[in-house]
Amino acid sequence: MACLFCQIASGEVAANIVYKSEGVTAFRDVAPQAPTHILVIPDRHIAGAAEVTSADEVVVGRLVRVAAEAARMEGITDRGYRLIINQGHDAGQSIDHLHVHLLGGRPLPTPLV
Amino acid sequence: MACLFCQIASGEVAANIVYKSEGVTAFRDVAPQAPTHILVIPDRHIAGAAEVTSADEVVVGRLVRVAAEAARMEGITDRGYRLIINQGHDAGQSIDHLHVHLLGGRPLPTPLV
Repeated sequence: MACLFCQIASGEVAANIVYKSEGVTAFRDVAPQAPTHILVIPDRHIAGAAEVTSADEVVVGRLVRVAAEAARMEGITDRGYRLIINQGHDAGQSIDHLHVHLLGGRPLPTPLV
Repeated sequence: MACLFCQIASGEVAANIVYKSEGVTAFRDVAPQAPTHILVIPDRHIAGAAEVTSADEVVVGRLVRVAAEAARMEGITDRGYRLIINQGHDAGQSIDHLHVHLLGGRPLPTPLV
C-alpha cells in the first residue's frame, strides 16, 4: 500500500506545503488542533521514531530545525510552540511515516499528557 | 546563572540517569506525568528548539534515537510513546536547555493539545 506521506513528499498527492528543502517537507495538517498545526516529515520513508538509526540522525535533527523555521515563518517563536512525535498505538500514531507535529498560536495545556 | 541540565550532564548535579553516551544524557523526570517520563538532553548547551542550527542536526537527531532506545529499555516500544519538545512560554518550557520528553506506559490523550 502506498504511503500517504511519501506521496506528499514526492508531489504525487497535493498538500498545503509551507517548506520543502534538503530532504524535508513541511505542510499544514488537514485537521488542525491549534492555530498553527504543521507536519514536518523526511522525504525518505522512516516508519517512526522507533525505526530511527544512527544513519538517520542528520535528517531527524533537520526535522526539528525546519519545524523551528516554520514557527518563525508563522510568527510564533516569541510566544512559543510544542513539537510532538507520536510512536505507535498508545500515542495515537495514525500514519506510519515519521512526522513532527508543530503546534502553537495559543497557550498549550499542561500537564503534557 | 548555572544551567541545571548542563550540571546534570556534567555530573555536578545528581539525577536518575538511564543512558549516557555520545554527547547525550537521558534521565528520569523528577515529577513524572506518566509511568515512563524520561528527559533526553544534549550535553552541550542548546537553549531550545528555536536555537537549533544546521551544525546541531546530528546531536538533535540523536536525542530522538536515544529516546527510542530508552523506550526500548522501558519495554514500551510495542505499545507506543510520545516525544515532546516545548519551546517558550506558550508551551510551558521550564528549563532553557533543549530537552525531549519521553512519555509512555499508558494510553496518551488526543487531541494532542
